[in-house]
This record gives sequence, C-alpha cells and structure tokens, in this order.
Amino acid sequence: MAEHFIGEFFGTMLLLILGCGVVANVLLTQSKGQQGGWIVITFGWAMGVFVGVYTSVHLGGSGHLNPAVTIALALFKGFDKTLIAPYIFAQLTGAICGSVVAWLAYKKHFDVTADKELIRAVFCTSPAIRSPKHNLLTEMIGTFVLLFGALCLSPSTDMLGTLNALPVALLVLGIGLSLGGPTGYAINPARDLGPRIAHFLLPIKTKGHSDWSYAWIPVAGPVVGASLAVLIYNLI
Amino acid sequence: MAEHFIGEFFGTMLLLILGCGVVANVLLTQSKGQQGGWIVITFGWAMGVFVGVYTSVHLGGSGHLNPAVTIALALFKGFDKTLIAPYIFAQLTGAICGSVVAWLAYKKHFDVTADKELIRAVFCTSPAIRSPKHNLLTEMIGTFVLLFGALCLSPSTDMLGTLNALPVALLVLGIGLSLGGPTGYAINPARDLGPRIAHFLLPIKTKGHSDWSYAWIPVAGPVVGASLAVLIYNLI
Amino acid sequence: MAEHFIGEFFGTMLLLILGCGVVANVLLTQSKGQQGGWIVITFGWAMGVFVGVYTSVHLGGSGHLNPAVTIALALFKGFDKTLIAPYIFAQLTGAICGSVVAWLAYKKHFDVTADKELIRAVFCTSPAIRSPKHNLLTEMIGTFVLLFGALCLSPSTDMLGTLNALPVALLVLGIGLSLGGPTGYAINPARDLGPRIAHFLLPIKTKGHSDWSYAWIPVAGPVVGASLAVLIYNLI
Amino acid sequence: MAEHFIGEFFGTMLLLILGCGVVANVLLTQSKGQQGGWIVITFGWAMGVFVGVYTSVHLGGSGHLNPAVTIALALFKGFDKTLIAPYIFAQLTGAICGSVVAWLAYKKHFDVTADKELIRAVFCTSPAIRSPKHNLLTEMIGTFVLLFGALCLSPSTDMLGTLNALPVALLVLGIGLSLGGPTGYAINPARDLGPRIAHFLLPIKTKGHSDWSYAWIPVAGPVVGASLAVLIYNLI
Repeated sequence: MAEHFIGEFFGTMLLLILGCGVVANVLLTQSKGQQGGWIVITFGWAMGVFVGVYTSVHLGGSGHLNPAVTIALALFKGFDKTLIAPYIFAQLTGAICGSVVAWLAYKKHFDVTADKELIRAVFCTSPAIRSPKHNLLTEMIGTFVLLFGALCLSPSTDMLGTLNALPVALLVLGIGLSLGGPTGYAINPARDLGPRIAHFLLPIKTKGHSDWSYAWIPVAGPVVGASLAVLIYNLI
Repeated sequence: MAEHFIGEFFGTMLLLILGCGVVANVLLTQSKGQQGGWIVITFGWAMGVFVGVYTSVHLGGSGHLNPAVTIALALFKGFDKTLIAPYIFAQLTGAICGSVVAWLAYKKHFDVTADKELIRAVFCTSPAIRSPKHNLLTEMIGTFVLLFGALCLSPSTDMLGTLNALPVALLVLGIGLSLGGPTGYAINPARDLGPRIAHFLLPIKTKGHSDWSYAWIPVAGPVVGASLAVLIYNLI
Repeated sequence: MAEHFIGEFFGTMLLLILGCGVVANVLLTQSKGQQGGWIVITFGWAMGVFVGVYTSVHLGGSGHLNPAVTIALALFKGFDKTLIAPYIFAQLTGAICGSVVAWLAYKKHFDVTADKELIRAVFCTSPAIRSPKHNLLTEMIGTFVLLFGALCLSPSTDMLGTLNALPVALLVLGIGLSLGGPTGYAINPARDLGPRIAHFLLPIKTKGHSDWSYAWIPVAGPVVGASLAVLIYNLI
Repeated sequence: MAEHFIGEFFGTMLLLILGCGVVANVLLTQSKGQQGGWIVITFGWAMGVFVGVYTSVHLGGSGHLNPAVTIALALFKGFDKTLIAPYIFAQLTGAICGSVVAWLAYKKHFDVTADKELIRAVFCTSPAIRSPKHNLLTEMIGTFVLLFGALCLSPSTDMLGTLNALPVALLVLGIGLSLGGPTGYAINPARDLGPRIAHFLLPIKTKGHSDWSYAWIPVAGPVVGASLAVLIYNLI
C-alpha cells in the first residue's frame, strides 16, 4: 500500500516537474527555451511521461499518474477499487508538488513575466477557443486515444527494463502533437487540477485568477473519455 | 476474420485521428501548435503509425493500415488474397472515421479558418506543384521506400512487445522528412481517399471542393510503387 | 559475395534517397518542408542511416554504407581486405543511384529553384566557411566520433532485430546536430562523391559547377578520421 | 583501474565534443545550424549522453561522466570511495579535451563570431537571469531529477546492449527541455568547469572573461542536488 502511494506520488511529481517546466521554458520571459515551439512542449511532456511512468513502476506504483486511468480501470477492468482513493490522492498531491518545484526552478522568470495568461498557462490548461461543449469533446477524444492505445500495449516484459515505459511516452507524444491544439491536452485530471490549486495558493507577483470556471472540463472530459475507451475495448 | 477487420479498422482509425489531427494543429487558425513546422507534422504522423500498427496487431490485424501494402503483399508475396477486399474495406472505413474524429476535436478551429485550401489539407494531400506525372512518380518513390524498407524489417520477436512497431514508425518518419516535400506523402490510398470522402460529406462551413481530379494519384502511385518494391525484393 | 554487394548497394541507395531528399525538402523552392530547419535535416539523415543500415544487414551486407568505415576496418581491424574494392564500388554506385532517385522525386522543385548553390547542396556538401585545412579537420573529427562510437557499440543481438540499427542512427543524429555546422557532415566519401558525380552528370536546368576543388576533402577527411579512430581504439 | 579511467575519460570527452559542438552549431556566426533552436540544443546534448554513456561502459567505466553522480553514489550508495578522485580527474580532463575538440571543429566560426558572450556560452553555462540563490536552486533541482530518475532505472540487461544507454539519454533530454531555461542545465560539475578551464586557456581571438564568479554554482548545485536525491531515494 505504501509503495503504491509512493510510486504514484513521485511518478506524478516528476511528470509535473518536467511538464510544467517545459511550458515555463517556452513561455516565460528571458528563458533560454523561449519560443521553442510545439515540438519542445510535446517532447518535454513525453519525456515527463517516460520518466514518471518508469519511476512510478520502479517504486511500486502502477504508472497510472492519472485519475482518469485509475477510475476507468477500476470501474470496468477489474483494477482494485479500494485503491482509487489513495491513488487519486497520491496523484493529486504529487501533481501539486511537481508544479511547485517547477515554479521554484523558474522563480526569477515568473518575476519578470508580465502576462498573467502565460503565468497561468505554466500550471494548467486553457482552451484556445473557449467552448465548454467542444473543449470537453476534445479532452474526451484525447483521453480516449490515451486509454485505448494504452490497453493495446503488450504486457510489459522484464527484459526491456526501463524501455517498457517508452511506448506510452510515444503515445502521449502523438496525442500532444496531434490533439493538443484546441485545449492543450490535459487528458489527466491530476495534471490540470493539481497545478491549478498550486497556482491558486502560490504567492506569485503578477498572478491573475485561476480560471476555476474551466477547471471541471479537464476533470470530466478525461474521466468520460477514458471510461468510453475501456468500455469499447471490452466490447471488442 | 472479425479480428482482422477490427484490427485494421481501429489501427487505421488511430492513424488518421493522429495524422489528420497533427495537420489540423499546425494549419488551422488559433490552434496551439499553429506553424509548428514540418518536424511536428512528420513526428505526428510517425506516432500515428506507431500507435496504429501496434493497436492493429494487438487486436488481431496485420498492421498494414494501407491498401497498397495489402495489395502488393497479396499479389506478389503470398498474403491471403481473400483478405484483400475486407482489409481494404476496414482500412477505408477506419480512415474515414479517424478523419471525422480529428475534425470533431478541432471543430471550433475549422469554424474560424477562412482558407479553404488549409481546411482540405487537414483531410487529404495535394501537390506543392501540380503535375500528374511527377506527383505520381513522387508517390511511387515514397511507397517504394516504404515497402522495400518494410520487407527488410526483421521478423517481429515477442520479446520486444510494443516496440516492434517502432521501426516502421521511424521508416515513415524518414519518408515524411525526406520525400514528403512535393506531394505531402500520402503513400497510402486509404489515408488519402478516406479523409477525402469525409471532406466531401462533412458539413464544413467554409469548405471548398474536394479536388477529385487529384484523387487518383495517391491511390495509383502507392499501389504501383508498393508492387514494384515487392517485385524487386523478390528478385534479390 | 553477391549479397554483400547487394546489401551495401541498396543500403547506401536508401541512405542517399532519404539524405538528399531531406535536404531537397528543406532547401528547394515551394517544397512543403522548406525552411524546416536543422532538426529536420539531421533527423532525415539519421532515419536514412537507420533504414540503410538495417536494410544492408538484412540483404547480406555489413551496414557500412561508407568507404571510410570499410577501409579503416580492413586496414586496422581485420575486416576482409578483398572486400574493400567491391564494397566501395557498391557504396559509390548506390549513392549515385540514391541521389538520382531523390532528384526524380523533387524534379519539379529543382525546375523552380533559381539558386545554383541550393541545388548543388541537395547533392553534396560544401563548407560554410571555405578553408581546406579547417574543413578537413572538421570532417576528420566528425568521422573520428563516428568510428570510435561505432566500435564501442555492443555486438548486435538477434533479439533486438531491426532496433539494432537504432544506436548508430542516433550516433549520426548526434554528429549531425553537433558537428555538422562547419561542413555539413559528409563523414562518408560515398555520401559526398556519389551525389557530386550525379550532380555533374544530370541534366539540371539551372545547374552550376560541381565544386570539384572541394571534392577531395569529404573523401580524405573521413578516411583519415576513421583510421585514427580505429588505431586509438586498438591502443586502449 | 586503468579501464575505469579510460572509460570515464573517453565517455566524458564524447559528451563534451557533442555537447559543446551543438551549442557552437546553434550560436556561432555562419554555422549551418545557426538558430536551430532549443530542440537542437537538447537533442544534441541527449545524443552526447547516449554516446558518452555507452562508450564509457563499453571501455570499462561506469557511465557516470559526472562528478556529482560519482560523489553522491560514493557517499550514500556504497560506490567505491577510492574511485572518487580518479573518476573526477578522468571526467574533468575528458571534459576539457572534449571542449577543445569542439573548438577545433568550429575554429573558423569562432574567428568570425564577435559576441564574447556567445563564444563563452559554447564552453560553459551562464544564467539567463543572474541570481546566485535561484541559479543554485535550479541546478539543484535539475540534478535532483537526474539522480532520482537514474536511481529508478532498471538494472541494465545485457540483452539490450547499447540501447541500455537510451533511458538516461531521454532523461537528460527531458531535463534539458524542461529545466534548462534558467541556467542552461549544467547538472554536472565536469561539464561546466572543464570547458570553462578550456575557455580560460585557449587562444581565442575575441574572447572575454571566463565568468569565474559564477563557476561555483554549476559545481555546488549539482553535488547538493545529487546527494539529496540519493538520500531521499534511500529513505523510501
């Protein structure tokens, strides 16, 4: 039980350190990677998934790092339901901590960035074109592809060791490159809600509001999309 | 038989969700990946191949996702000829569905994009310089490299699991980077014709014509190029 | 013997189709990948190495694709000296054919490109700052890293299959990213001389001279650099 | 003992040839990769890690290439303490030599680059926003992720051969993409101090000062960050 928690916590923390970090690098003023473009963003998140997943598994977690994955597998795929609550707690606290670490690493760049939208974008997603219905649909589609693609992965062989985490990282790379355009591909309630809470709590100079009215979409969309993927996978 | 169909259908659908998705991300107005460049396009399609192939194989398909592959292997390499028709049907319907899902994910961005050429480019290929003879030749060369390279892959070992799909994804990455410039590398009749049909049928606001006069080239070129590759491979 | 030749011929041909192709894509007028940048160039060549090496090995070659590799291994590492001449012949003719295929694929774009330097750059390398002494040194260093890095590869295991070709592709990716700036990293006499001969012979409209005065550098530099690498490797 | 030294020396030399090389390529005047962007920089360093690590291991080293790794593992993880001094000596001299080789490869481009800051940036890191406290923190965080991520790697299996070095290269790719923005991710005392010494000693025309006041940060930060990672890893 403890290793489960530790695995999911540290895995999600690393995912968010690298994930929020890469957005900070590309968006914040005077950062060396500023305007590095979408290829930098998507590879940064993909490497975050790679490191987060193998770390989580190594420490005894399941490499979910994502409440939508945990819930969908528990509801429809026989994953132990008593683990839902502790997993989500580990994922959410890990995500909060990870985004705080990324903020610490880029502290001076937050200080010199005037645009409040950019500062919030380091933490949580926001839609390119605001439309609850369509944004929800996009998040559902992205997470559907994530879960369906993850269910079709071959069961891990010990022989590959750490490289077992590469396929899911490449899957998320693909989702980011291809489906990230409209909403910034949260596809994970913890990835979005955790850093949003951090943004709300942290003493950032030029901070704006935390856009709570959007916060339900990157929670509900992924959970529904993931569940649909498991249901359809079970059908076929 | 049913798994064959299901495998090719879902594999091709995922290929086109990610493939049409990445083009939408780079081309459509206000998308977060707009002007992400050729590296984003080619990695997006390559990850589409990776996910599509391993999903297809996992579900019982052959990971062709491409009528030119199926036809060339059936004519000259002993692949079961009775599977040609169901495979092509699965690939084509999968491609149509995949492009529709990508359209749904980017719906709001289609609504704000005024350029009809860009909107069609999300669905199907068009030549940078129109010249039936040369465009056909380029598609033949690209698909020749695809098939010749695919025939030289080592037979899959179960030990590698999902990573078995990586070499063919890297092969397509290379073809896109290197031979995609003149025609946008269809190298697959289903990849082009399926989304072109979707473009023709979908109720898109600022839609132009579906450029049917070009449609035969990304069908004929790949079939001829693939067949030549198998014939030459058989010779040596 | 025949497979050796066939392996090296087709492997080098594929290397040059993808290698010259990616340069054409990034440099020629109206190509879809125009101005794709150094990341596109280097990944294109790296995928060319990946496909070329595994194809060569699959068909019975050694995956050298490079006279400097063949010569250095034959002189100082016990590789069969009687294979030097046929290998070099296969590599050179393969390189010529590969660049001709790339030219065919981009024929219309050659027709509309006015800059003679760009057209020659698709075929063969030229220095950013001309200085025989320093250009030679840069090519020696690049090929030294190539050979030294290749000698330290673990002997191939059948279990990895095609992925055995990935490390050397990543090695060439690294050399291109890091040491390609001054001379365009020929690091291979066949890669440069073959396409230069093709450039000289092909009926290209706006063709300039083939810069024969530079041609010895991407031949001599790689041979010396490769030999030094093998000698130092043998010492330690 | 001798192999240990040789392994760490050549591994770190290759890391710095490719690492300093890619910075030269992106920053120096008239280089073919000029303004290639952050994706080129980070992939160049990642391939340097890949090649450096597998070369080091092949020649009998441990693939540390980094005094912070050696010190942290010796202090808190049972790595042989008598190897600390020779390893650091090998890493530092390897780093110096590697940066000199990169300088030789780009000699003509150093000659035509007027900006002293850019010239020094090829050798050693400097902060985007100077703040000892925050720069130290960023280097600590980056190296914490490096060590924590490295400790969670599965023990190497011979079956993967050279690909065993891929996960750590991808880990460094992720750190560079995500945490490199504020300080240029030294995360390795030898990587920074070695080339800084080379910059100090080399007869470069338009050379400025070697910024010795900053030099302690990429030494102290990585050592502390690495040690913290091992300590926390030991706790859990």
